[in-house]
Amino acid sequence: MQKLIDKIKAEGRYLGNSILKVDSFLNHQVDSELMMEIGQQLFKRLSDSTDKPITKVLTAEASGILPALTTAMSGNCRMIYARKSISKTMVDDFYTAKAVSRTRGNDVAFYVNSRFLSPDDNVIVIEDFLATGSSISALVDIVQQSGANLIGIGTVIEKPAENGRAVIGKALQQDCPIASLACIDFENDELVTSLGNLQVERNI
Amino acid sequence: MQKLIDKIKAEGRYLGNSILKVDSFLNHQVDSELMMEIGQQLFKRLSDSTDKPITKVLTAEASGILPALTTAMSGNCRMIYARKSISKTMVDDFYTAKAVSRTRGNDVAFYVNSRFLSPDDNVIVIEDFLATGSSISALVDIVQQSGANLIGIGTVIEKPAENGRAVIGKALQQDCPIASLACIDFENDELVTSLGNLQVERNI
Repeated sequence: MQKLIDKIKAEGRYLGNSILKVDSFLNHQVDSELMMEIGQQLFKRLSDSTDKPITKVLTAEASGILPALTTAMSGNCRMIYARKSISKTMVDDFYTAKAVSRTRGNDVAFYVNSRFLSPDDNVIVIEDFLATGSSISALVDIVQQSGANLIGIGTVIEKPAENGRAVIGKALQQDCPIASLACIDFENDELVTSLGNLQVERNI
Repeated sequence: MQKLIDKIKAEGRYLGNSILKVDSFLNHQVDSELMMEIGQQLFKRLSDSTDKPITKVLTAEASGILPALTTAMSGNCRMIYARKSISKTMVDDFYTAKAVSRTRGNDVAFYVNSRFLSPDDNVIVIEDFLATGSSISALVDIVQQSGANLIGIGTVIEKPAENGRAVIGKALQQDCPIASLACIDFENDELVTSLGNLQVERNI
């Protein structure tokens, strides 16, 4: 998605240690118009790769909520965001899985109310970043626990050097397309961008 | 907003202790079409009450992100969500304020990068719930710290019995309209709904 790459080049700030700060448009301040186009692109790429109607979009709080909501709006379906803690109001059973936060360095658990995913659902998983693959693998795990059909995985920015696709491939119980809209890498501490891709990852 | 009230009546689950669970469409699973209409309504009501162009929509992670994003989309402006913790990538100065979480019972701090709010901004604050007014007051505090103009406050569901407007009124440095789309109350443990309202709250 060229517009996204242009935005990354114009506003991304490299902090070293392979961390690119995109908080001016993606995950703190948000460019609402660009976010809608991101959702349209993710929905199109993932719905084009299946003949099943997508019923749910699953993400995790907080930064995944933005692209997941616009993806769900594009497909006129419901979205679910996994909670990172249990509140007093979570009185039902839930699915849970653990991930490691790359920028915070701690373990986080995701919780999804079991009422909201069923074997009748065709689900796509959306996250803002695909880096180590830890949080997406946890969301994949939750979809698989529920018995719902995992139709595809979509991410806004992929960092191929961190090999997240291989990690997700190990979590997958069946083939699943993974779409990204932009890839970033760092060579000699310089940002290198390329168009994202859509590829079916296999269970290894 | 009658459609919202119908949804609350159809899907809201009363847990006792004045807590209504709306996680099937508002703050865990999300009805993306309804959320867009909520954003359109909030933007319309608050922009109609000012002659200034709204430049930013401010909320707090996580559940506020949904209505704040669709409000920002309706006005084609940027949105900002206050973070509840500082990550390794937050290298700039930030504004901060504290709130008490009603459903979790603990203190939370909100952080907003100081680059994203300036005296040139005309800001509306959006939250999913207006109950005790604690989190909205913290967001108001952050806007006022930045010197930006606070144009209005919008909330999806208001619980008038918890007197949040009086708490926010004390935090306000000037008159500010507060709009809600639906009000809920409990009489003899029965849910009572009414249309939300738009009212200018004064500094007390």
